[in-house]
Amino acid sequence: MINSKTETRGLILNTAAVLFRNKGYHATGLNEIIRESGAPKGCLYYHFPQGKEQLAQEAIKVVGLEIQAKMEKVFQVYEDPVEAIQEFIRQSTESIFTRAEDRRFSVSLLALETMNMNENLRQTCSEVFSDWEEVVYNKLCSGGFSTETARSCSEMVIAMIEGAMTLSLTKRQPEALLSFADWAGRLLRQQ
Amino acid sequence: MINSKTETRGLILNTAAVLFRNKGYHATGLNEIIRESGAPKGCLYYHFPQGKEQLAQEAIKVVGLEIQAKMEKVFQVYEDPVEAIQEFIRQSTESIFTRAEDRRFSVSLLALETMNMNENLRQTCSEVFSDWEEVVYNKLCSGGFSTETARSCSEMVIAMIEGAMTLSLTKRQPEALLSFADWAGRLLRQQ
Repeated sequence: MINSKTETRGLILNTAAVLFRNKGYHATGLNEIIRESGAPKGCLYYHFPQGKEQLAQEAIKVVGLEIQAKMEKVFQVYEDPVEAIQEFIRQSTESIFTRAEDRRFSVSLLALETMNMNENLRQTCSEVFSDWEEVVYNKLCSGGFSTETARSCSEMVIAMIEGAMTLSLTKRQPEALLSFADWAGRLLRQQ
Repeated sequence: MINSKTETRGLILNTAAVLFRNKGYHATGLNEIIRESGAPKGCLYYHFPQGKEQLAQEAIKVVGLEIQAKMEKVFQVYEDPVEAIQEFIRQSTESIFTRAEDRRFSVSLLALETMNMNENLRQTCSEVFSDWEEVVYNKLCSGGFSTETARSCSEMVIAMIEGAMTLSLTKRQPEALLSFADWAGRLLRQQ
């Protein structure tokens, strides 16, 4: 049974994760998190005594795990790793261009904002990228890629997704991201 | 002859460009721009009556042109487009990992921060990405790529650079960006 303290903590954290993911670190205020979550004001510092930094650090992990879970879900359906990666890109594209709450299917914004400002947050974003790479790496290995090729490809796939998402969202052109799915496929098939 | 009004305007704008590029839109304050530029406070609103938005919009263009100039400079030296692109990535990597003022060799942060908040700024970032793509496109065409392939490749090259730069900087690993130069080469050679 979940007690109310745990519930309140989860509520604050999930609200923070949505706001940080969509607006970034600097544009998200603690008052906004309190207001949106509906939690009593005193609760935030009770549950997150180090305030915004701690909340952001945990929120980045939540966002990372959420995206990882979506990736793993698609990867379970498609046996072929290249098809699986392409399908993940297609589903992400659909999601970020149709669902307002998914417009940031990435931690690039949080990473770029915090990398020179806060070592803990940079480290957390770095771990999220590495965790995503690991999922791609395992999928490629299970599909017959050598460990060396899989390592190098997995890093490239995550970097390409992040970059293509940034450009695609900036231009408001889902096509850019979709055409990247073809590119990723072509690149991986040639390994 | 440059008059002092023009000089002051340029001073404010260049200071703003460095700050916006390195810290992003939200973390850069107008007071900081004034302080760093050394310009009298009243000057900012005299030269940029729409304040932070106008200053950011012009600063994004300055950053875009600056990076474009570096790209064009490298592209003039290397005749082969693939070599030219790889060399640009190598030089950018060296620059962002050794020169503190070049740590943001990109407008991804500004694009991701502003895309859902300010249509003018999103549009400006989008134009910067398109201008960079155009430089790559022209180089690829001059190197014998078909216009269709060059169009699609140029978008992918800029997306890959942005993504690889974000991951590489977040992880503090120049290797990730350098290994991307190989990937980009492999991908383009196969077209």
